[in-house]
Amino acid sequence: MQVTAQDVADAAAAIGTHVVRTPVIAAPRLGEPLGVRLSLKLENLQYTGSFKDRGSCVKLQRLAQQAEPPNGVVAASAGNHAQGVAYHGRRLGLPVVIVMPQTTPFSKVERTEALGAEVLLRGESVAESTAFAQELARERDLAFVHPYDDPVVVAGQGTVAIEMLEDRPDLDTLVVPIGGGGLCAGIAIWAKHVNPRLRVIGVQTELCPSMHALLRGEPPPPLRTHTLADGIAVKTPGAVTAPILKQLLDDLVLVDETDIETAVQLLASQQKVVAEGAGAAGFAAVLRHPSLFAGRDVGTVVCGGNIDRRMLSTVLLRGLEREGRIAKLRISIHDFPGTLARVTQMIGAAGADIIDIEHQRLFNKLAPRQAELDVVMETRGRAHVDRILLTLEAAGFPAKSL
Amino acid sequence: MQVTAQDVADAAAAIGTHVVRTPVIAAPRLGEPLGVRLSLKLENLQYTGSFKDRGSCVKLQRLAQQAEPPNGVVAASAGNHAQGVAYHGRRLGLPVVIVMPQTTPFSKVERTEALGAEVLLRGESVAESTAFAQELARERDLAFVHPYDDPVVVAGQGTVAIEMLEDRPDLDTLVVPIGGGGLCAGIAIWAKHVNPRLRVIGVQTELCPSMHALLRGEPPPPLRTHTLADGIAVKTPGAVTAPILKQLLDDLVLVDETDIETAVQLLASQQKVVAEGAGAAGFAAVLRHPSLFAGRDVGTVVCGGNIDRRMLSTVLLRGLEREGRIAKLRISIHDFPGTLARVTQMIGAAGADIIDIEHQRLFNKLAPRQAELDVVMETRGRAHVDRILLTLEAAGFPAKSL
Repeated sequence: MQVTAQDVADAAAAIGTHVVRTPVIAAPRLGEPLGVRLSLKLENLQYTGSFKDRGSCVKLQRLAQQAEPPNGVVAASAGNHAQGVAYHGRRLGLPVVIVMPQTTPFSKVERTEALGAEVLLRGESVAESTAFAQELARERDLAFVHPYDDPVVVAGQGTVAIEMLEDRPDLDTLVVPIGGGGLCAGIAIWAKHVNPRLRVIGVQTELCPSMHALLRGEPPPPLRTHTLADGIAVKTPGAVTAPILKQLLDDLVLVDETDIETAVQLLASQQKVVAEGAGAAGFAAVLRHPSLFAGRDVGTVVCGGNIDRRMLSTVLLRGLEREGRIAKLRISIHDFPGTLARVTQMIGAAGADIIDIEHQRLFNKLAPRQAELDVVMETRGRAHVDRILLTLEAAGFPAKSL
Repeated sequence: MQVTAQDVADAAAAIGTHVVRTPVIAAPRLGEPLGVRLSLKLENLQYTGSFKDRGSCVKLQRLAQQAEPPNGVVAASAGNHAQGVAYHGRRLGLPVVIVMPQTTPFSKVERTEALGAEVLLRGESVAESTAFAQELARERDLAFVHPYDDPVVVAGQGTVAIEMLEDRPDLDTLVVPIGGGGLCAGIAIWAKHVNPRLRVIGVQTELCPSMHALLRGEPPPPLRTHTLADGIAVKTPGAVTAPILKQLLDDLVLVDETDIETAVQLLASQQKVVAEGAGAAGFAAVLRHPSLFAGRDVGTVVCGGNIDRRMLSTVLLRGLEREGRIAKLRISIHDFPGTLARVTQMIGAAGADIIDIEHQRLFNKLAPRQAELDVVMETRGRAHVDRILLTLEAAGFPAKSL
């Protein structure tokens, strides 16, 4: 293995106070229903919102301290790695170029530029951006900083485990999201050094189980990055990380989009913690595979919190919708004056709050004097919705939940 | 003063591990733009999502340990106090009755019932619920647990300060939201005991500045509880807390609804922390009055995270709207086939993402063959919106931002 526990310890010494020492918190409201003593390492509280600050910090310091430092550094990333490199480059006075795919949302470009980096939009995919970045590294004599396939970066990410086990020496299981594998490899090295019986379980998304396939000797899965956990939708497992994970991982489990969405939702609503999809993947694994974790002291890394505000808002509303707390009813009415007032009065009396209403005379299969009302309302949940439906039917307004 | 630093220390000993020892985190992304070294005490991570766990824990333990414990406890609250009392009652085997105003949203009833309490909906206001609860206490021989006007509760809340100053002895200013004043009074007692020069600054909302008025000898303001910070919209300052705050507070500042909304927004989007309005009031004060805090080591208590999911979602979307990142344009078009395609193509080419579109032929002041398009889109911000407006105008589509 190219990374040792000593490397991780050295990385921690190098990091010093240049990276936030994030807290490990108890999450009884999330863990108790699953029979798990759950702790969360809040790497979403890093300056740039993810654990990537660590590897970038160690790698860039190493480069800056060389006898002949490079002219600057270059990285390819549309996400957290970009921000980590930009932040520590600025801190160390190293010029930073970040190459992003042309389709990158502007907010990510802007956030990286705000950290002082030069952003170039090149290529259709991260793979193409990477090729361009490596080319640029040669041309301009820049150091290329790989997001995970670099022993120094892996050691840097491993410092998460030092802090977790210092704060919670009683943890017996660590659950760690895997994209390229840098975070999980670094954590596994330190955890197994401290206690070989400490279980380390990796997590990938079913949409992009690249490391999962590699470790099982299966062919690479198709690249599907359209996941809420885009931060771990990585096509190519690291050549440095894969052998480490193959040797040290106790298990690598998969989660689907619903698991991830539910995890983001519960983390925000129950635990008051904003996690991006990849950052919620560890808790999603506990939700999905509770028998693996029941009765254990489980620590997982909320590895990032950089979720788009509109996406977070959507996830919160979809959660309410799934629980029936926001419901949309389609109600057939006779199109007479006063009917709308009667229906809305009934809904109000039943204790639901109307949020939105649409009255449709066209595009329905009813008689000409009939119409459809689509009513969006806040309710107390499914059972309440069912009672409202019965009340409406009884009053002569056939209704259904959409 | 009815509460001493020793009382606070005793409360901490009583609390032991029955309350989460919440972390104090550095918040450089929030503080740096204001020139403040800002730390946040995350009381939103308590089991019931607020600091109320502390006072309830100490008070209920004290009651349970009496030679003749009461038959149970009763409290009046529609919010965090209800949950704190319910949780610790269940833990200690004390039956709990919570009286809430009849208009209380069902989600709050449900959450309190889920913690094992009997919930009674009585009265139109918290004041009426309180009167009913006190009556019930006499009838059923229950102990009435006041949310703030009780020396034992104040001492319990003060334990927040012990932990803050243990974790960050370098803090020179504490900023604490004030409703009834229990949290702020408890914190002030400990902080001034540790270091009389440590500044303690209270925060209230302009909509309900009851303690602010009392301390200045002004008449009580009208009760306006329709604030995002409903947790600190308390009409009656405590008789226990007011004299403590009068003696110990260095200042009591006010924030308005916009400050609070912006604070909730930034805490979630920049700091990845879910705060309710009252929980964000401390940071809102730093945002509103930066000159009071610049160059200082400031600690504020994120005192609660129990914000309704729909409200959080609304705050996030309104933030995007304020920044122009979600914009609604009204575009006048000629109602010819192909026009819609042309306009949407132009918007797409300008780099904006259309989220919603409405085509109106009626209710506009245009000629019969003209129509209005209302287009909601994601953009890069105000300047981007302005460029899109110019592009549309130049192509013969007069447009304005709504």
